[in-house]
Amino acid sequence: MKFSFRPVEGAFYDLFTQAANNLVKGTELLNELALPGVDVQSVSDRLTDVEHDSDQITHDLYKKINSTFITPFDREDIYSLGSQLDDVMDHLEAVGNLLYLYGLTELPSLPREMHELVDVLDQQAKITADAMPKLRTMKDLDEYWIEINRLENEGDRSYRMLLVRLFSGEYDALTVLKMKEVADELEAACDAFEHVANTVETIAVKES
Amino acid sequence: MKFSFRPVEGAFYDLFTQAANNLVKGTELLNELALPGVDVQSVSDRLTDVEHDSDQITHDLYKKINSTFITPFDREDIYSLGSQLDDVMDHLEAVGNLLYLYGLTELPSLPREMHELVDVLDQQAKITADAMPKLRTMKDLDEYWIEINRLENEGDRSYRMLLVRLFSGEYDALTVLKMKEVADELEAACDAFEHVANTVETIAVKES
Amino acid sequence: MKFSFRPVEGAFYDLFTQAANNLVKGTELLNELALPGVDVQSVSDRLTDVEHDSDQITHDLYKKINSTFITPFDREDIYSLGSQLDDVMDHLEAVGNLLYLYGLTELPSLPREMHELVDVLDQQAKITADAMPKLRTMKDLDEYWIEINRLENEGDRSYRMLLVRLFSGEYDALTVLKMKEVADELEAACDAFEHVANTVETIAVKES
Repeated sequence: MKFSFRPVEGAFYDLFTQAANNLVKGTELLNELALPGVDVQSVSDRLTDVEHDSDQITHDLYKKINSTFITPFDREDIYSLGSQLDDVMDHLEAVGNLLYLYGLTELPSLPREMHELVDVLDQQAKITADAMPKLRTMKDLDEYWIEINRLENEGDRSYRMLLVRLFSGEYDALTVLKMKEVADELEAACDAFEHVANTVETIAVKES
Repeated sequence: MKFSFRPVEGAFYDLFTQAANNLVKGTELLNELALPGVDVQSVSDRLTDVEHDSDQITHDLYKKINSTFITPFDREDIYSLGSQLDDVMDHLEAVGNLLYLYGLTELPSLPREMHELVDVLDQQAKITADAMPKLRTMKDLDEYWIEINRLENEGDRSYRMLLVRLFSGEYDALTVLKMKEVADELEAACDAFEHVANTVETIAVKES
Repeated sequence: MKFSFRPVEGAFYDLFTQAANNLVKGTELLNELALPGVDVQSVSDRLTDVEHDSDQITHDLYKKINSTFITPFDREDIYSLGSQLDDVMDHLEAVGNLLYLYGLTELPSLPREMHELVDVLDQQAKITADAMPKLRTMKDLDEYWIEINRLENEGDRSYRMLLVRLFSGEYDALTVLKMKEVADELEAACDAFEHVANTVETIAVKES
């Protein structure tokens, strides 16, 4: 390893871990939307609160990059990882906001494949939160990267079957269009978790 | 600062400034589309001319990167900034072209939120054009970056409310699909301005 | 040139060439879909096989990056090029899969502009496969880069005219939505070929 564990470096790992923990909060809020009689506006508002918190973490991270002489790994990679964690949160927030704005939760039920996608995101969030502290030692990150990619493939399949259902004639055209927007944000969140994992992989390749 | 202001370096700043000034021309042309009795085909054609001009600027920039021994900052960043300025222009041109091709300007009026998005783009173009010459000294770029991000958030909100309106049942399904294409290009242009700003930020971080 | 042609380096060029040759297989399978009485499911399955083969090549490439001390050019660029070649394959596979899943080939015929897009992809695949071995000497890559960009512009035009046709009222809303998904994957594949060419250009700029 090229660096020692000085306090200033610990701050970077803490910020990445906080950002990833917020993603777990985000996917747990999306899971709440499946509960009967849920207050959708309240869930959407709480997602927006978590998203603002994530923005603050990203901002703190950028300030720390600028004020730190020696960073634990390349500045650009820290910057990428921070902005990619932030991207995931943006997509999670969008899912909740759109479900509320479009009134989609007033339907008798959402397609099963949407719940499958939320479940994939929930798993991705949890293993991402577990992986962030491992950046300190760069150990056991391979498993994380492989699992995120496996989940992303699973998400892709659910997304594809969701579109088949949406286009099957079960829903009217405008409802299809609304659900398609939500589906695209769910799939973008899956991809965004993969981008985070790819940056972690890039960092690990450089450090190895 | 790591470099002196030699003539060859000035050429890079000039090309970035020209590219950004073209984006102002682009958003001004989009503004013309709101005027009563406007000749949409003519606006669309003039957008295509400006876009070709931008392509030429990007091409000149790439040639200059290849023929210059010492560049004012990393070759890859110059390359990124050039291609991202070009991306914005592509989206602005697409907005004008699609409005014309789909015959959308024959509607009594376009949704208010579309005009809001064009207004956001116009502001983004102007502060981007103001920021480019500041790359010489790397001063006062923070304000630019913060303001672009604020405008991008504003654009996101307008885009989201535009979709709510499009999906409200006010328009038939095919008109919704056409407007959605235009809306996506407007939103992509907003994002593309943010990518430009992020690259400027990356350059500033490296130089600081 | 900064490097000699040692066996280990040859392996990188071989993997890039194999990946690009798979893209040619992919576009040839898409061309088969235009033949009368074609077995769409079989074509879709064979595309999935080629895509799995590409995944294996990408995986081999990443392993080689990690196990090689001196790489012929920057590790990150090798990584980018590998993942971008893989992205093209993902879009080609998606085209075949969606045509099958949505039952679109049961229509009397697909829009002419879709065939134009497949033809553009076929040309892009072939010149990409021709260009990969040239990474050894970095010679004659300019023509490749220019031609890929020309083809991408041609693809953009076909895509735009395809949307005009889809939104013309010739098809019902759900069929339009299905075809739009296929059109987007075709256009994304065109773009993905351009991303490959841009990375080749970045590598050439660094080596020059």
